[in-house]
Amino acid sequence: MADRITPRSQDFSQWYNDIIQHAQLADQSPVRGCMVLKPNGYAIWEVVQRELDKRFKETGHRNAYFPLLIPESFLNKEKEHVEGFAPQCAVVTHGGGKKLEEPLVIRPTSETIINYMYSKWVQSYRDLPILINQWANVIRWEMRTRPFLRTLEFLWQEGHTCHETEDEARRETLKMLDIYQSFLRDHFAMAVIPGEKTPGEKFPGAENTYCIEAMMQDKEALQAGTSHYFGTKFAQAFDIKFQNREGKQQFVHQTSWGVTTRLIGALIMTHSDDKGLVLPPKAAPTQIVIIPISQKGQDSSKITEIADRLKSELLASYVVHVDAREGHSVGYKFTEWEVQGIPLRIELGPRDLATNECVLARRDGVKTKVSLDQVKATAAKTLDEFQMALYTRSSEFLKANTHIENDLPKFKERIQANSGFYQLHWCGNPGCEAQVKNDTKATIRCIPFAQIRESGKCIVCSAASTGRVIFARNY
Amino acid sequence: MADRITPRSQDFSQWYNDIIQHAQLADQSPVRGCMVLKPNGYAIWEVVQRELDKRFKETGHRNAYFPLLIPESFLNKEKEHVEGFAPQCAVVTHGGGKKLEEPLVIRPTSETIINYMYSKWVQSYRDLPILINQWANVIRWEMRTRPFLRTLEFLWQEGHTCHETEDEARRETLKMLDIYQSFLRDHFAMAVIPGEKTPGEKFPGAENTYCIEAMMQDKEALQAGTSHYFGTKFAQAFDIKFQNREGKQQFVHQTSWGVTTRLIGALIMTHSDDKGLVLPPKAAPTQIVIIPISQKGQDSSKITEIADRLKSELLASYVVHVDAREGHSVGYKFTEWEVQGIPLRIELGPRDLATNECVLARRDGVKTKVSLDQVKATAAKTLDEFQMALYTRSSEFLKANTHIENDLPKFKERIQANSGFYQLHWCGNPGCEAQVKNDTKATIRCIPFAQIRESGKCIVCSAASTGRVIFARNY
Repeated sequence: MADRITPRSQDFSQWYNDIIQHAQLADQSPVRGCMVLKPNGYAIWEVVQRELDKRFKETGHRNAYFPLLIPESFLNKEKEHVEGFAPQCAVVTHGGGKKLEEPLVIRPTSETIINYMYSKWVQSYRDLPILINQWANVIRWEMRTRPFLRTLEFLWQEGHTCHETEDEARRETLKMLDIYQSFLRDHFAMAVIPGEKTPGEKFPGAENTYCIEAMMQDKEALQAGTSHYFGTKFAQAFDIKFQNREGKQQFVHQTSWGVTTRLIGALIMTHSDDKGLVLPPKAAPTQIVIIPISQKGQDSSKITEIADRLKSELLASYVVHVDAREGHSVGYKFTEWEVQGIPLRIELGPRDLATNECVLARRDGVKTKVSLDQVKATAAKTLDEFQMALYTRSSEFLKANTHIENDLPKFKERIQANSGFYQLHWCGNPGCEAQVKNDTKATIRCIPFAQIRESGKCIVCSAASTGRVIFARNY
Repeated sequence: MADRITPRSQDFSQWYNDIIQHAQLADQSPVRGCMVLKPNGYAIWEVVQRELDKRFKETGHRNAYFPLLIPESFLNKEKEHVEGFAPQCAVVTHGGGKKLEEPLVIRPTSETIINYMYSKWVQSYRDLPILINQWANVIRWEMRTRPFLRTLEFLWQEGHTCHETEDEARRETLKMLDIYQSFLRDHFAMAVIPGEKTPGEKFPGAENTYCIEAMMQDKEALQAGTSHYFGTKFAQAFDIKFQNREGKQQFVHQTSWGVTTRLIGALIMTHSDDKGLVLPPKAAPTQIVIIPISQKGQDSSKITEIADRLKSELLASYVVHVDAREGHSVGYKFTEWEVQGIPLRIELGPRDLATNECVLARRDGVKTKVSLDQVKATAAKTLDEFQMALYTRSSEFLKANTHIENDLPKFKERIQANSGFYQLHWCGNPGCEAQVKNDTKATIRCIPFAQIRESGKCIVCSAASTGRVIFARNY
């Protein structure tokens, strides 16, 4: 392990890897491109699971589980889908010591196997809507991988729904995107830009792909969640028909939507600093660590008693850990919990206790001395303020680094000097999109819902444009 | 779908499949031996996850996630382990369109990859114990499969721990077995017999395998959970060494333990009847369904209002569903929820409401008429009693069908006529164990912790025996 964390300003990419290592979030595995989520990292995923699962269920969804292995021929049923995913598949050719008659692919996503099942389950409008989510692992054979951001295997949830009408399916698509956005705002303290993908960037097989795009501290974009409207494309490929209210056969309208463990990468790159991980209180598996500081040779029972009392007071609202380990210095403990991003540290020292006080230290360095009987109220206030401060900073950073530009050479210069989101006029032509990418590595992250709508000229070809889209370099 | 559920007495196996289909727990998938867990089935797994996860965390364990794919060579590092699992592996030979240099197997269990990581993580006694659990999918290439009981892919949790001393590791092994047993008792209302496996039945690579054995309604045994003590076998194979308190290098002592989605099969076969699934209240995703019964042409707003009020009263303690669907008869609804095993139905009919009453109908047919203001208290009492009644029945059934036998021909006759648990004297010789299996299909399920210890003669070879073991046919 590197002794210290590389500063962001020196090497952002190395800083990111150092944080993951020092905060014990993940480790490399012996399988190329596959990582191990260590307990600290997995615990953040459990927060994602708990909070999103609650929201999914509140909006009428239920969880199910479909097979990991998919017959290779299934992928071929939807043309765009197979073109998008077949090259990324891991293929099982042998099972139980024998060669299989038909190879099986490990799911890169589950549209094909799920829609096969839906074709058996849907007969009548009474069977609709189908609102199912799955928490699962998937594999996509990526060439270049980075922990959390792009790994061969990753964990995710994938919702797959069927509806009677286009209108209902379209509302579902946007509802789920909104759930992602509000989860990231309320728990991950991350501001994002919701919008629609261009045809070149949409999900293979979707009619429309919507996304939320976040900005990392290096001002590059990270796609944090997607929601797709499929129309009847998969329904036609898999023959998912129902008898409608008029007694006629028709195809269902479908959606799918998902977020993955890359959210943890986004969380790291949004808030953390050169001292280590920074966790917003509502994204943190543990909000508070209490550190009793006893002096050598002195009786520590009084301090231990107070630490335990504070813990039980705070437990009703927070996950609290008392670090009473012996054999580690106070400084070592402070640093360790700081590196791991615990939002609030409570220091119980003998001098403070003499005046019936203790110190609350927020992860960003803000310290308050409070009376012991005010700890509960002050901790709550401190954590709320910290959560809010992190969101405000994320939101302001996003705004401050979102620019308008009309001139191609200037844009190239600017993005070279200073990454960020650039709102450019674009004519809708994939060729112009590709040229910008080729020249600058920036792609269209989305056509934002809150688009600047105005007449203009495409930054590449000068053809007419009716609004600006967001170009950025991305993870 | 078959119109009705086959009675148990007619065909137990078909009854089991009918319950799964009618209660919408699972469906066959297009991949041989892999099933789809439908929302009703997955919701039971969520109860298992929630309750066990709570107990794991209360005993100091944390969750992590390790790769699905394991280099084939890893399996070879522990001799017994590879012999046990290699023939059952699904093998990935191609990824990203290319043949892999080394094939990867889909985990049949994760000892090898996890222990590889542990060898990197453990350096000093200060790093111990490692108490990690993983919720995951695994694949074992089974030839004969049955939904929940034996499927190619299944969901499970696998705990993997490292300890300084043999004593601590042995205590962990038994602690986790005890957690399984108490979970099954308190939530699944299932009585089980805890004990140790014979060398012929233990986990490949374990020094000792402990298990809990349940009895299904057809009196066959079902292994409901296992916990293994590995000693230092895997530690030696993977070189997991630490510097102990005396400054010397030594190998860690290890355990692993797991339960799978087959528990849902066990739950079905323990409690259900010819009308459908029976769920103990504490295993049920939904405890109570309220059915407002309105008369045609009459205003239903009063009944709906009462249904909603009852629901909100009960929601503090239970998951409650109001079935206010139109277009379905009351009889249809009663049958549907009965088939799905909902423990308590509350009937709100106009005649009862006239006297300010309603009917509570327990899933086993016990009905009570209660005043509307007594619903909450009576529902709680009814559900508690039902939970207890199911456990008592399971426990008594297990006792009533556990027999003692000393004579081999008689035993063959008896188990042929009447399956069950048979406590037989056995000398410890695998040959005698094999002969019984060959003659009767019964195997040693376990050497129970509460063993009948007495001098006797092996039922096969008449050699000396110091106690009885449990023979049974099993799933």
